[in-house]
Amino acid sequence: MIPGPTNVSDRVMNAMISPIISHRSSDFHQLYSEIAEGAQQVFETTDDTVVLTSSGTGAIEASVVNLVRPGDEVIVPVFGEFGQRLSESIELAGGKPILIEAPLGEAPTIDSIEEAFEKHKGAKAVYVVCNETSTGVRIPWLKHIGELASKYGTLFVADAVSYLGGDELPVEQWGVDLCVTCSQKCLAAPPGLSLLSVSKKARKFIEENPPMSKFFDLSNYIRFYERKKETPFTPSLPLYRAIHEAILLVLEEGMERRIQRHKTCANAFYQGFKALGLKPLVEEEIRSNTVIAIRYPQNIDDKRFRKMLDEEFRITVAGGFGDLAGKIFRVGCMGEISSHHVLATLSAVASVLKLQGETVNIDEALRITTDHLRPLKSLQQPLST
Amino acid sequence: MIPGPTNVSDRVMNAMISPIISHRSSDFHQLYSEIAEGAQQVFETTDDTVVLTSSGTGAIEASVVNLVRPGDEVIVPVFGEFGQRLSESIELAGGKPILIEAPLGEAPTIDSIEEAFEKHKGAKAVYVVCNETSTGVRIPWLKHIGELASKYGTLFVADAVSYLGGDELPVEQWGVDLCVTCSQKCLAAPPGLSLLSVSKKARKFIEENPPMSKFFDLSNYIRFYERKKETPFTPSLPLYRAIHEAILLVLEEGMERRIQRHKTCANAFYQGFKALGLKPLVEEEIRSNTVIAIRYPQNIDDKRFRKMLDEEFRITVAGGFGDLAGKIFRVGCMGEISSHHVLATLSAVASVLKLQGETVNIDEALRITTDHLRPLKSLQQPLST
Repeated sequence: MIPGPTNVSDRVMNAMISPIISHRSSDFHQLYSEIAEGAQQVFETTDDTVVLTSSGTGAIEASVVNLVRPGDEVIVPVFGEFGQRLSESIELAGGKPILIEAPLGEAPTIDSIEEAFEKHKGAKAVYVVCNETSTGVRIPWLKHIGELASKYGTLFVADAVSYLGGDELPVEQWGVDLCVTCSQKCLAAPPGLSLLSVSKKARKFIEENPPMSKFFDLSNYIRFYERKKETPFTPSLPLYRAIHEAILLVLEEGMERRIQRHKTCANAFYQGFKALGLKPLVEEEIRSNTVIAIRYPQNIDDKRFRKMLDEEFRITVAGGFGDLAGKIFRVGCMGEISSHHVLATLSAVASVLKLQGETVNIDEALRITTDHLRPLKSLQQPLST
Repeated sequence: MIPGPTNVSDRVMNAMISPIISHRSSDFHQLYSEIAEGAQQVFETTDDTVVLTSSGTGAIEASVVNLVRPGDEVIVPVFGEFGQRLSESIELAGGKPILIEAPLGEAPTIDSIEEAFEKHKGAKAVYVVCNETSTGVRIPWLKHIGELASKYGTLFVADAVSYLGGDELPVEQWGVDLCVTCSQKCLAAPPGLSLLSVSKKARKFIEENPPMSKFFDLSNYIRFYERKKETPFTPSLPLYRAIHEAILLVLEEGMERRIQRHKTCANAFYQGFKALGLKPLVEEEIRSNTVIAIRYPQNIDDKRFRKMLDEEFRITVAGGFGDLAGKIFRVGCMGEISSHHVLATLSAVASVLKLQGETVNIDEALRITTDHLRPLKSLQQPLST
């Protein structure tokens, strides 16, 4: 139950053990085409998609080195570890990050973001962490940021690593120029692959201004796909099989229902933890649907709590990063997340709290959680036809 | 039978479907420790090893961005596609490649390499493709190059992607500062991971001169491993399981026996193809033990030959790169390579040649190949105790 790598279904795991094929064969061309076309549906775009054999951090670095050139001003909301890393990557590429900061557990306001656009009219790009995995904060103004980027002629890059497939981001409609996600979060495949969408505008820029990196040159991947349905460098075949199957599962469920399922499970988590007397780190308006960050009661020790949860109940959750270490725990609400995961996690957390001396009302918490999970039933029917 | 990705044993494939675990758990610490320690044995070094969740091309780029700084002179033998790519990567990093070129199918002489050291005494590094996958040429002077590098105080980087695990490279003894290999060649795991060894000298340089890339910063990986037995960024867990099992298989066999097996199979291939009337592209002294490059007879068409071999005999071999396209085919002799693979490939090639109008002496070729495969039997006994 950590916020990625997340649980992977048997269908996806088993897909990995197909025999190794040549990555220059027609079997591979078909596999890759189906992934690329499926990825377009996941990103909700008709533009190009790229699959990188690399961790998410590699793909985030790709998003930076493809667009940021020395001296470029780049607007970056920073409200946690991953925004911080983005700004460092931008600096390494010679860019000048314009930071819009917010305390851990909060998000920069849309007004402060708009102000940065107004004040830095020549800014090359805005890089937004859609969902800050380290704090469980989501940015609810992505559509608005897209409109600002369009108005000011700024490239819009979305770090949707712990977000896409679990929350709303119609990439083309909202004007995202580069969207980055990876296999092991809401898409529920194993880690090791990243997916990117590339708008026409971003592609044109990259083609006219090739990056310093060959491995991360996105236009090279797009050209290889267009010409041959191949990757320029050896792809991780088992992970391509896995993401192929994982995307099929996403499309069978449908993006709309999938996002509703994530929202419903997240809400049930927040309500259930609240009924146990626990406080979420984040205010409702900017609360993540995919990473649930919960404050510890005063007398609960982070390590002791997570150790018992892990060893006695076989449920692994994550601790906090940096200043939040020891103060919160984080639960992944991603990918295959279901009522079973929510109930099992909630009841195990309640039991550990009880065993470690807290007074908790388990009956009430279970009743409330179950109530809030009820909408899942209707998601088994088509939402729209 | 392409020169990677190569066939993967069931033991390694099945290892991938272990449940996804947290990459910050003690289970992962143990997994990664065993990989890192096993990798030391494969590299034959007591220095640090790094596992990157990236294709080989990414790891080669890592070897460049960690050591090459703008203005650095770098000696690069170029005798095929992968040497060419290396020199381009070095240029992208601002380095000045000192090219020592040789025609396709040949290798630069050790004298020409020594001359370059002598002429460019301030050269920062020498980057050597140990085995040029595009032509089937191996460099038999790696030990000598290590001595030159040591004499001139030059960093020695070995691109051992299609070489390590199938040919001789005792990294520490021969003074290799950075050695790069990846999962899907002679180590016989699926593609998607790379392994590097980092000498004390290279590590010191990287720590004092951090690279522009966060994802590829090798010293960061080494620090994370030392402190926590973890990777800085999410590792590809199924591929870590696979490489763990693949390394176990290598160590069970023993490096010495494994290399002998590759050599014996390669020799049987060369002798068998010769008996079919086919000419190797490469002279014996610099012939690869892992990639067998064979010239087509005049009347055989590359595409038609490989299509029939693939579709009728279910054996896939690779064509030539660039100027060699249409002129040669390449057979992988890597990883799990055994007498069965050699005999099945040889007899299928013979049959296709016959079906496509060539006169070939299959009986003679089979006899000679079988003779040359005989030493494999003794490899089932320990070579040394």
